[in-house]
Amino acid sequence: MSLAEKILQGDIRAAARLMRDVDDGFSSALPELKTLYPHTGNAYILGITGPPGAGKSTLTDQITASFRQSGRRVGIVAVDPTSPFTGGAILGDRIRMNRHADDEGVFIRSLATRGALGGISRSTGEVVNIMDAMGMDVVIIETVGVGQDEIDIVRMAHTTAVVMVPGLGDDIQAIKAGILEIADVFVVNKADRDGADRTARDLSMMIEMGNRKEGEWLPKVMKTEACRGTGIEELMAEFEAHRGFLSASGIMQRFTEEKNRAVFSEMLKERLFNSVNGRILENGELKRIVAGMGTRSVDPYSAVEEVLDRYLLDAGSESA
Amino acid sequence: MSLAEKILQGDIRAAARLMRDVDDGFSSALPELKTLYPHTGNAYILGITGPPGAGKSTLTDQITASFRQSGRRVGIVAVDPTSPFTGGAILGDRIRMNRHADDEGVFIRSLATRGALGGISRSTGEVVNIMDAMGMDVVIIETVGVGQDEIDIVRMAHTTAVVMVPGLGDDIQAIKAGILEIADVFVVNKADRDGADRTARDLSMMIEMGNRKEGEWLPKVMKTEACRGTGIEELMAEFEAHRGFLSASGIMQRFTEEKNRAVFSEMLKERLFNSVNGRILENGELKRIVAGMGTRSVDPYSAVEEVLDRYLLDAGSESA
Repeated sequence: MSLAEKILQGDIRAAARLMRDVDDGFSSALPELKTLYPHTGNAYILGITGPPGAGKSTLTDQITASFRQSGRRVGIVAVDPTSPFTGGAILGDRIRMNRHADDEGVFIRSLATRGALGGISRSTGEVVNIMDAMGMDVVIIETVGVGQDEIDIVRMAHTTAVVMVPGLGDDIQAIKAGILEIADVFVVNKADRDGADRTARDLSMMIEMGNRKEGEWLPKVMKTEACRGTGIEELMAEFEAHRGFLSASGIMQRFTEEKNRAVFSEMLKERLFNSVNGRILENGELKRIVAGMGTRSVDPYSAVEEVLDRYLLDAGSESA
Repeated sequence: MSLAEKILQGDIRAAARLMRDVDDGFSSALPELKTLYPHTGNAYILGITGPPGAGKSTLTDQITASFRQSGRRVGIVAVDPTSPFTGGAILGDRIRMNRHADDEGVFIRSLATRGALGGISRSTGEVVNIMDAMGMDVVIIETVGVGQDEIDIVRMAHTTAVVMVPGLGDDIQAIKAGILEIADVFVVNKADRDGADRTARDLSMMIEMGNRKEGEWLPKVMKTEACRGTGIEELMAEFEAHRGFLSASGIMQRFTEEKNRAVFSEMLKERLFNSVNGRILENGELKRIVAGMGTRSVDPYSAVEEVLDRYLLDAGSESA
């Protein structure tokens, strides 16, 4: 039986194995992913992001417990793109593992490397797909920070929660332009701390000042104390409200289409490059170009045009 | 006279104009960049990165003043990739502008958008090249944070300083895997604050524990109070030491080669994709693929392979 067939029958070890293959860039993963693809598209994808130390892991843990209480199977992808080189560890992992270790309805996977197949967002997407095909009802993507990588990642989510903590004034300033656009829900966690009301007020003001069009979703600011479970029920209700909004307003359809387009484009870009790059690497052309750039006798703009002319079918018709 | 010719004669307005064209993705920029390219490769490129609030702008200001005192012309590219959507402002800009506004030996450019030509690191590279061709002796790239974008950006620098402030323990934990690999110098700024010695000690320990090979550069931890100018002279000496190390050890040569290869690859990837994507957009193929993904009757892996077969010359020989 192929890995994919085992996964479709709920084999967790087969799923873990395929995720590793994807991460390692094994070409053997490709037919498996093709087999799984028709079985994807059913999971509700929830993104959780925010600065380090905001309590995202604890919050994810509580949210998972709540989904489990209502009988949903939960996949968790914990992504840490801040450590692209050495593949740093996700600290909260062990803690979470302990709590849900014996629960077959929870599947956790950490991603710290960028993934050989092309970027961490690509790897994350494949892992989400595998969990989706496994029959997970909910897939939670938890990621640190709000750089471009993280934004690409949480864009896969149907609903994205941005978690903040009181007293990170400067950080809010620095990242607000980015988070305003991706947050469907703001969570002020550690709400027992000094300044929680102030942070919540600042966020609310930011939302009000934002340029929302009519009919658009207006993010709410929720307060939680994840370590005590305070505010989780209200947060879950807000997730449900957003999900309902997406379906009712027809946004879900558009969202899926945009996501599919982005997935395809990213793969096309990667494969085109790998194919052409492999050939100019093999025939020595790349070496000549790079050497020429070193002496400034070759400029990269012209070199790229020549390579396109040589390897792209009918590239000439472009300029015609 | 072309923009490029004007720039080579030191015309600052022409340079600013070309940088805007690059940012806007005007194809008219391409021949200008080609003309400038042979005149690049002379500037010493210095990267300055670190979390928001670490005082990078003030530090850049002091470093610039020091370079100016020794008669060097300085270009500054201030990059803020944390605001990819709305193109948020670089706060420190106005302050710096005031100090160096009348100095023809200083040229400042802020980049907040990702740039139409393909990513913020690409735009940053073009701006650095233009400054280089203008005859700037030093180009300082100042960027916020240490996500993948920032790492791609500071990789262009010959010497990279990572700026920290006392009391950001959690952040250090979260980012250390990434910064260890890019930092040539660590700067503990605001060194008058409580905990400065502790932060410096933590960093030193991190460096010691790192897996440096023999003959590799060992980053030092420098303490500064940028707002008073304390520690700047020592920091400048350390930059000079690193530059000397690069030249003497032959690393500069390898560095330039790797950088040139990365620049070419990035351009090739972008142009290949744009060309093929433009054609499948025009002939309706993309639309059919995305629609098929929506009903799960088409999987993106197979669709990409078909597109490659159709548009890449001799793609069949790959699998042969």
